[in-house]
Amino acid sequence: MFEKYYSRRILSTPSSFIREILKVIQNPEIISFAGGLPNPISFPQEELKVSLQRITSQYGDKIYQYSTTQGLDSLRQLIVDRYKKLWNMDITIENVIITTGSQQALDLLGKVFINENDMIMVEKPSYLGLLQAFCSYEAKFVQTKLNDDGLDIEDLKRVMREYKPKLAYLIPNFQNPTGLTYTKQNRIDVFEAIKDEDMLLIQDDPYGELRFTDDERIGYIGLNQTDKNIYLGSFSKIVTPGMRLGYIIANKEIIRMVETAKQAADLHSNIFGQYLIADYLQNNDLDKHIEKIKSLYKTQANAMVEAMKKYFPENIKFTIPKGGMFTWATLEEGKSALDLFNKAIKKNVAFVPGDPFYVNEKNVNTLRLNYTNATEDRIDEGIRRLAEAMRE
Amino acid sequence: MFEKYYSRRILSTPSSFIREILKVIQNPEIISFAGGLPNPISFPQEELKVSLQRITSQYGDKIYQYSTTQGLDSLRQLIVDRYKKLWNMDITIENVIITTGSQQALDLLGKVFINENDMIMVEKPSYLGLLQAFCSYEAKFVQTKLNDDGLDIEDLKRVMREYKPKLAYLIPNFQNPTGLTYTKQNRIDVFEAIKDEDMLLIQDDPYGELRFTDDERIGYIGLNQTDKNIYLGSFSKIVTPGMRLGYIIANKEIIRMVETAKQAADLHSNIFGQYLIADYLQNNDLDKHIEKIKSLYKTQANAMVEAMKKYFPENIKFTIPKGGMFTWATLEEGKSALDLFNKAIKKNVAFVPGDPFYVNEKNVNTLRLNYTNATEDRIDEGIRRLAEAMRE
Repeated sequence: MFEKYYSRRILSTPSSFIREILKVIQNPEIISFAGGLPNPISFPQEELKVSLQRITSQYGDKIYQYSTTQGLDSLRQLIVDRYKKLWNMDITIENVIITTGSQQALDLLGKVFINENDMIMVEKPSYLGLLQAFCSYEAKFVQTKLNDDGLDIEDLKRVMREYKPKLAYLIPNFQNPTGLTYTKQNRIDVFEAIKDEDMLLIQDDPYGELRFTDDERIGYIGLNQTDKNIYLGSFSKIVTPGMRLGYIIANKEIIRMVETAKQAADLHSNIFGQYLIADYLQNNDLDKHIEKIKSLYKTQANAMVEAMKKYFPENIKFTIPKGGMFTWATLEEGKSALDLFNKAIKKNVAFVPGDPFYVNEKNVNTLRLNYTNATEDRIDEGIRRLAEAMRE
Repeated sequence: MFEKYYSRRILSTPSSFIREILKVIQNPEIISFAGGLPNPISFPQEELKVSLQRITSQYGDKIYQYSTTQGLDSLRQLIVDRYKKLWNMDITIENVIITTGSQQALDLLGKVFINENDMIMVEKPSYLGLLQAFCSYEAKFVQTKLNDDGLDIEDLKRVMREYKPKLAYLIPNFQNPTGLTYTKQNRIDVFEAIKDEDMLLIQDDPYGELRFTDDERIGYIGLNQTDKNIYLGSFSKIVTPGMRLGYIIANKEIIRMVETAKQAADLHSNIFGQYLIADYLQNNDLDKHIEKIKSLYKTQANAMVEAMKKYFPENIKFTIPKGGMFTWATLEEGKSALDLFNKAIKKNVAFVPGDPFYVNEKNVNTLRLNYTNATEDRIDEGIRRLAEAMRE
């Protein structure tokens, strides 16, 4: 009844497909690989309880008062220190702004950079939260092919040539939805292909800390070589998502622009949570905590990979993840993951059909499987059921 | 250096004038009436500490996990209960969505309703956070006159006729920046003037609970008479702003649209804070707490009014606030509040010149004074100094 009042942008923003799916799978009998929740083991609850006591006695009313848009200085400094240590980045807190989760980072970057019909390059498939966020600024998208090594360089060059994107959005580590990771060589090749273009590059990295294989960490694309890089990070997968705290690292001028956008968007992110996370980081060994998460996810990922090898028909391809929370299966050409979803639900197993991760395709033959919220037994049983549905 | 990448919207969004001012007044010698911070007395710290203990033991990992976009059901129910009790509103939790502070409510409503050049009606002067939020969606504004009773009905009718606004934004209680409150009759007249128009009405009410005179509460404009009303509320001025929790109450269809916008904007507001506030409200007498805040603000407001009567030159007009956090002074015609600001700073007293609260005017003769963060003595001394600056 309010149709005539709505903006163009909101009418073109897809509401979440995944949310619709989650409604179908309330039944506790269903083994769900559909969600994207971190395992509760990733929340250091006992340590956070100690930090809660400390911040309430230490900072008085500051933890409840309004605060600055850019975020708590001590938390920004901790982020600076970590990125200096890990990546030798030459940054100060002026290169960092705290956001209300990484999702807000996407929204703010959309606000700062996107005019209607601006061309944005994303992976094929890409994170659906990004597609929603940028859709709400009436962006146009071009998707560039992913293969086992990362971006398909020939396709990337073609896209750059034909579409001249203003902005690219990539998830080089344990990508959502595919679980794929760009190789070191691929990152070099990607940078070579884009470095002279008039294009900013956003690298979203919510899962980067969760590498559970022994390979060494691989640096960002164009790391320390350009001012056109924008890095996103988050505490959601390594401390707590409930506090909604992420951050953007970029050139100071860009950060100031994002600050103006953020002030209009929510004044600042909750400061209580910022004090809490800062205190937690100052008084605990984050790397040790992350080891615990990685160890569990490795076990779960292995269980899923083993089950897929054991039960899936031979013609089903899937990612073997090196970290993160997802794997990605590809059915035979022409098959529909949505059809499979309907069959699978009858067998009490759920997943996310690939459709919402594509811009212009429907009834795709790909699907996302999350492994971080089920025991090894349930993973085995769920994949067995799914394989049955595939054979129907 | 990134100029060519920025969106039109961000280049036209004003960065905060107040933030710039706050930089000037770091000196602790300065008596500042410039801020807009609630007094720390409004944070029930001891009770929140008890709630913190309770939620960490009661809800386990739920307080740290991802949650739903619309917000915590129990908190939405508490809001429903309060609005039913106060205003006899016929609503359920489906009429309520939790936002990251009221500022995000403004941003989301902009996202849902505004196309570029859409005409928005606001008071003259209006809340600068709204101007920033809607500017970032390339709205056009028309300002309608405020007088001591509320909106000037003739001017309102003229604006409706000439501009046909799609959306109006009003703060009927203890308005920011003026401290003015619409009378009961004025609200009836406003509703009469707009009810048949194709216009949605947003009523922002962050200060409504803070009426410190004995007059009865006055209901919203068009209360329970239309589906075109959108109500905003916030816990910032009565419990804590640091948690960034506000809410929108509206028709269910509008709430669902806002939910789509919010999912793209930050997935959901911090859930820890939602559990905390819900627990606080369930286990304490909010009205009793609010009495404490009102009692302090009344004393401070009286101190400021008395000092203004005592020291200000006769030709200076000012609001006598009945609640909220601000008063508003009007200098002689032709005088500039910015000039006064520069003189006042030399006498170590600060305020906000009216400029940022207007859409198309500069060097206005009005100024905002906040009284909630100074003792009676400091208020007296600050107003004395300000009066001196006025006489220069």
